[in-house]
Amino acid sequence: MAHPAPRGIGDDCAVLPNEHGAAQRLVTTDSVIFSKHFDASVSPQDAGAKLIKRNASDIAAMGGVPSDAVLSLVMSRDVELAWLKDFYAGMAQACDALGIELAGGDLASAPSGSPLFIATLALTGFCDEAPLLRTGAEAGDAIFVTGSLGGTILNKHFAFEPRLGEGRFLASFPREKVRACMDITDGLAKDLKALIPAGMHAEFDWASIPVSEAAQKLSGGNRELALKHAFCDGEDYELVFCVAPDFEADFTALWRERFPQTPLTRIGRIVSGGAPFPQFDGFGYEHFSCLRL
Amino acid sequence: MAHPAPRGIGDDCAVLPNEHGAAQRLVTTDSVIFSKHFDASVSPQDAGAKLIKRNASDIAAMGGVPSDAVLSLVMSRDVELAWLKDFYAGMAQACDALGIELAGGDLASAPSGSPLFIATLALTGFCDEAPLLRTGAEAGDAIFVTGSLGGTILNKHFAFEPRLGEGRFLASFPREKVRACMDITDGLAKDLKALIPAGMHAEFDWASIPVSEAAQKLSGGNRELALKHAFCDGEDYELVFCVAPDFEADFTALWRERFPQTPLTRIGRIVSGGAPFPQFDGFGYEHFSCLRL
Repeated sequence: MAHPAPRGIGDDCAVLPNEHGAAQRLVTTDSVIFSKHFDASVSPQDAGAKLIKRNASDIAAMGGVPSDAVLSLVMSRDVELAWLKDFYAGMAQACDALGIELAGGDLASAPSGSPLFIATLALTGFCDEAPLLRTGAEAGDAIFVTGSLGGTILNKHFAFEPRLGEGRFLASFPREKVRACMDITDGLAKDLKALIPAGMHAEFDWASIPVSEAAQKLSGGNRELALKHAFCDGEDYELVFCVAPDFEADFTALWRERFPQTPLTRIGRIVSGGAPFPQFDGFGYEHFSCLRL
Repeated sequence: MAHPAPRGIGDDCAVLPNEHGAAQRLVTTDSVIFSKHFDASVSPQDAGAKLIKRNASDIAAMGGVPSDAVLSLVMSRDVELAWLKDFYAGMAQACDALGIELAGGDLASAPSGSPLFIATLALTGFCDEAPLLRTGAEAGDAIFVTGSLGGTILNKHFAFEPRLGEGRFLASFPREKVRACMDITDGLAKDLKALIPAGMHAEFDWASIPVSEAAQKLSGGNRELALKHAFCDGEDYELVFCVAPDFEADFTALWRERFPQTPLTRIGRIVSGGAPFPQFDGFGYEHFSCLRL
């Protein structure tokens, strides 16, 4: 995953090798904002690493390989240099781990007023196969998720790893077999909507939902509450994707061989027509409004 | 300059064609911030166009061709939709004019507090020739600038055109002939420092400095004050670059043939050693601190 070092640091633009030939390019952007995505309880290293990892998760969701990034900082003049160095160290460490070059950026002082720190990353990448789009799912497809869901506030807002290897594996299959994919950032309930074609809905196998240990802990043994955490918490940075029904068994076997450490769960399937809201005994529509699929 | 439409709008990443083969990629990022780069006196269309054009000016300074961009917006909830649509329209118009595809982005609501609107663009581009870096100037090189300088507050903070054609023309020559280039954003006095190798300085032909009409107007006929505007105002979005002495005459002739409408001025040359501050009668060091080259 090593890249030739970019040129142009301190120049008008970063100059990057375009060694990927005819591959498709990917670009994504995401920010971390003090008092919104993190606060003083979070180490600057963790905040910096999160900026890199949340962007890399978007590349993973397309089945791509991350390449290089530019950083834009907008911040108050009272941000301490030591804090900033630690934020940068967290970014640098995550970049090293994921094979990303931080190739340049821009710094702007914030208008006077409230304390402000906004770090925006634009991350480029490549995709040698057809990228995994959010569109393409069909009726009958199995819906899979990686890992476990919910309770992320306890341990996963910062301690997660973007599923880059898994994303590339998914992209290596033809698009008529692995059909649609995205990463779960706003909660499965909200994000899964984007994968479901108009006039269809998700039929869940409720017993199978991989509720995380953290979500179980937060819900004190209440299964319904635990499911709410799994569906609504967000910041899971897991992948949710659709697989053609005739490929489901082979796919599951191939996955377990390749990623024995990454849990894979079939949580349901896509069906034509049907209720706009999945039926589940005891789920109050008002209370679980995040579940309106 | 037309590009195939990107895919992936609304997806995790923008998916872009990588049709430039073995060319080098460029990436740059820059923001516009309400109350810093513009205020309520500026139309949202102009502010949006400026975001595109100031990034494109960085691509121009490398001799590149702009390609596609992702936008990150961080803003208070009280920004009006009509204003935002106009900002977007200004961006879209500038993108069309410059052959840029706006391929995706991210939107985050700002933490509560002061009104906030920060738009950050990451712009990609390509460079088929060796890019024009800031490094590479040598003693004896002629220093050229495009256009005229200073007084930009009167008319040019928003009404400028990135010198994309001119930058590509400069990049089309071998790097031993056209040696270093950048765009003037912080004022010639500050920016030119970046082109001058250690142990050298700029010797100006003070009479030649192309002071803009606006700078002359602001200085009321005072030549010294007009020069200060030309050197220190910034936001010129003109190119400053160095040409080998044996290519100077041919270069000038070729330029005038190709860009009869774009003023080209030789403002001085690079010399070895010498004073850290250029001598100029009547320039007070304290008063003109921006001139410390």
